[in-house]
Amino acid sequence: MNTKSTINYQEIAKELNGIETTTNSDRLTKLSLDYYHFSPILTEQLQNKRGELAAFPTTEAEVLKIALICVKYKIPLTVRGAGTGNYGQCIPLEGGIILDTSKMNQIQWLKPGIACVQPGVKMAAFDKQARKIGWELRIAPSTYRTATIGGFIGGGSVGMGSVNYGQISDRGNLRRVRLVTLEETPQVLELEGDRVQKVLHAYGTTGIITELEIPLAPAYPWQEIIVTFDDFMTAASFGQALSDSHGIVKKLVSIHASPIPSYFPALKNYIPQGKHCALLMVSEYDITPFQDLVQEYQGEITYSKTAAEAAKGTSLLEFTWNHTTLHARSVDNKLTYLQTFYFTLERLEKLYQQRGDEIMIHLEFLRAGDKAVPAGLQLIRFTTGERLNEIIRDRESQGAFIANPHVYTIEDGGNKQVDPQKVAFKQQVDPYGLLNPGKMRGFRE
Amino acid sequence: MNTKSTINYQEIAKELNGIETTTNSDRLTKLSLDYYHFSPILTEQLQNKRGELAAFPTTEAEVLKIALICVKYKIPLTVRGAGTGNYGQCIPLEGGIILDTSKMNQIQWLKPGIACVQPGVKMAAFDKQARKIGWELRIAPSTYRTATIGGFIGGGSVGMGSVNYGQISDRGNLRRVRLVTLEETPQVLELEGDRVQKVLHAYGTTGIITELEIPLAPAYPWQEIIVTFDDFMTAASFGQALSDSHGIVKKLVSIHASPIPSYFPALKNYIPQGKHCALLMVSEYDITPFQDLVQEYQGEITYSKTAAEAAKGTSLLEFTWNHTTLHARSVDNKLTYLQTFYFTLERLEKLYQQRGDEIMIHLEFLRAGDKAVPAGLQLIRFTTGERLNEIIRDRESQGAFIANPHVYTIEDGGNKQVDPQKVAFKQQVDPYGLLNPGKMRGFRE
Ligand SMILES: Cc1cc2nc3c(=O)[nH]c(=O)nc-3n(C[C@H](O)[C@H](O)[C@H](O)COP(=O)(O)OP(=O)(O)OC[C@H]3O[C@@H](n4cnc5c(N)ncnc54)[C@H](O)[C@@H]3O)c2cc1C
Ligand SMILES: Cc1cc2nc3c(=O)[nH]c(=O)nc-3n(C[C@H](O)[C@H](O)[C@H](O)COP(=O)(O)OP(=O)(O)OC[C@H]3O[C@@H](n4cnc5c(N)ncnc54)[C@H](O)[C@@H]3O)c2cc1C
Repeated sequence: MNTKSTINYQEIAKELNGIETTTNSDRLTKLSLDYYHFSPILTEQLQNKRGELAAFPTTEAEVLKIALICVKYKIPLTVRGAGTGNYGQCIPLEGGIILDTSKMNQIQWLKPGIACVQPGVKMAAFDKQARKIGWELRIAPSTYRTATIGGFIGGGSVGMGSVNYGQISDRGNLRRVRLVTLEETPQVLELEGDRVQKVLHAYGTTGIITELEIPLAPAYPWQEIIVTFDDFMTAASFGQALSDSHGIVKKLVSIHASPIPSYFPALKNYIPQGKHCALLMVSEYDITPFQDLVQEYQGEITYSKTAAEAAKGTSLLEFTWNHTTLHARSVDNKLTYLQTFYFTLERLEKLYQQRGDEIMIHLEFLRAGDKAVPAGLQLIRFTTGERLNEIIRDRESQGAFIANPHVYTIEDGGNKQVDPQKVAFKQQVDPYGLLNPGKMRGFRE
Repeated sequence: MNTKSTINYQEIAKELNGIETTTNSDRLTKLSLDYYHFSPILTEQLQNKRGELAAFPTTEAEVLKIALICVKYKIPLTVRGAGTGNYGQCIPLEGGIILDTSKMNQIQWLKPGIACVQPGVKMAAFDKQARKIGWELRIAPSTYRTATIGGFIGGGSVGMGSVNYGQISDRGNLRRVRLVTLEETPQVLELEGDRVQKVLHAYGTTGIITELEIPLAPAYPWQEIIVTFDDFMTAASFGQALSDSHGIVKKLVSIHASPIPSYFPALKNYIPQGKHCALLMVSEYDITPFQDLVQEYQGEITYSKTAAEAAKGTSLLEFTWNHTTLHARSVDNKLTYLQTFYFTLERLEKLYQQRGDEIMIHLEFLRAGDKAVPAGLQLIRFTTGERLNEIIRDRESQGAFIANPHVYTIEDGGNKQVDPQKVAFKQQVDPYGLLNPGKMRGFRE
């Protein structure tokens, strides 16, 4: 691979003629970074990393042209969607070209149950179109308004809808991808069925996705609701019960232990101090049985907006998943987080009791394996990296699963181990190791 | 209550003027019986029971008029939908009037997500209308083509769709009912929310349902598929895996151990002798990931029809749930059945190994509690009532749950115990015990 010094990026820009590019350093700074700063550890490691040229292709042909030049000069290439990842997924560790997909934002076709899109299509914008024919995305992150579909497949995993459809890696949640390789002679490949796993959550290390076929969910009008509780474990049990209520259609079940709601000033009129709360999306058609469930758990509904009303303001979605961390950090930037699967309420209760002052528990329910399980993003009052690792090891020893968001390689985060299938595929499609170098640990080992 | 001798039903027919009635004995025989004959035990007990007059109201006002007369003369009243129940639910034990709902077959309104119907609306006919606006019933029995919605709520429990929505008794699967009471002065009541439980699976002992509000499911084009397997437990594990695949939308997961498929002559070209099979309904949009799952379990797809193709012939639905028993009995009428929840594959495997020649295992997957579980209707080679009870006790002692279909009271079947809420409600709405007398054991005890 070439190092920074030997490449003249002005010349490269010329060779890319017809494709929009920039070498403006302010823009490159913006286009090089993501939400890595949620982690004090990643902040230290990544804050100075920069790409040297950004390109904005609009078609697969232009992507191929960029790929060709990267191979020719052995220039690192890092794909960027909206740059909302939070593990530095799209931060170029070794400089080179940033391929920004934001101009590849066409919906190729849209049918009942399934759609085909370019990678830079933003999720909320997509749903606006899909809803016209009665469908919507199955799963979307809380960065729904800004994030791209390609970025979600490349770097995301879960979100609203996961209580029904699980994770994007669950079989069936991605159907087909086209991707451009960085082989000696770059080419376009198509992967279908289970083979799409090779690019899922691969941080763009196994090819540049140029088109995706994604399954859809029937669109419901989602009522947005806040329910408050006196007791945290009652709130958590309510979340489990709602997730398990097959007769009540829902999309989001997010539970917040006090004092987390105090980090949501916009919601302060709805969540009295000291209360625990559930932030929910439930089908408008199912509100009656939902109210019976709330009553059974002695919750209080303090906020309830129809889908039409909710569309006028900020969605409750933007207080859930990793947006909880965002709001908490905007009040107290000493806070960081850990992505944690508790799996059972029993384990959750034990860990809740051990939390001390250092930890605040925030749950998101999602389907995993044969059940809906409590997982979530607990907030941690950061002191040192050692202490953070100590917490991780302790939780793991008690049977929780932690997808560590304070590391930037695929394997050290959620995947936990080198995926030989992905590594072998990378060897095939990126023999020079130019794609987002340094992010797939298994490749260089 | 009056006994047969003292009432002149010709006079009653006159008093009911304006309402269609019959006292023709052939018609009364037909209108008095159901599929109780699946059980050799119920056959002995119930075959001679007859109503003495059948009435065919078309409106709630007419139902009220009939109720008034039943109370005036203390005449037993048994409601009948299509009479496809199989525990003698609508067989009048003490004669009297049969109130047949088949002329109360209007859809009152139909909106996205929810509909309001008269009780005599047939399920397949309803879906034909609902599908025009993109919706369908959440759950429907294999008697879908002929059975009524009121009869399903009054006497049914599960069916296609249960793998997604569970049982009709799960909160949210019935929203509101109107019913006519048999109080001193009969009246119309409305029950909403959890209070509908008082009429659910109550065999018409707690009021005559005159209107129901039911939630709907988004309609998919359902591909009908047969997959064959060499090994039964592989077929069962495949059924569990499909039920747990959140990324694959399905409606029916029905597994049949050899030699059950030999009772399906219509399917003999698709299921080679000795093979075990899965009869399935899967969303047409999800066939690709479905095929990957089949491959993982080394199944073979031998039959696959699109929804449009399937609509031209007999649906695979009509080989599943209790239709399996129907087909088996039409070949060998010594066969009967037991409704069994295995809950786990481990327990299923143990019971499968113990089956001997007497039992053939047929599974239906449905959501129950926090999971999709294997349940089903095992076929039993009937010898004596004692032996049948021995099998039941043995299975129960191994942790299976049996809803005994060889008894005609609510409590001795699936419910297992007297439901004090239902009994109290019956005391209120039917103080003279005229509604389907003898079916609610808790009422007279
Ligand atoms: C406040 C906040 C909340 C969040 N909530 C969630 C959440 O609920 N669920 C969740 O899963 N994530 C969440 N995230 C992470 C992130 O927002 C999502 O995963 C989002 O979908 C990423 O999309 P993006 O367009 O921003 O991708 P980017 O960050 O631009 O890219 C993500 C990764 O995908 C790769 N990539 C992008 N496009 C392509 C392509 N065309 N081909 C190949 N690789 C590509 C990139 O190289 C990078 O490695 C959150 C982040 C923040 C800051
Ligand atoms: C071959 C076969 C397959 C079957 N498969 C299934 C299955 O998959 N799932 C399942 O759950 N059942 C199944 N059944 C049982 C039965 O077919 C269903 O439960 C069906 O929905 C009953 O509807 P019906 O209109 O025939 O009701 P009926 O048999 O006429 O009535 C059922 C009960 O409900 C009461 N009732 C009817 N209408 C009213 C009313 N308006 N108000 C109050 N009470 C009322 C009756 O008094 C009776 O007690 C099956 C039966 C057979 C013979």
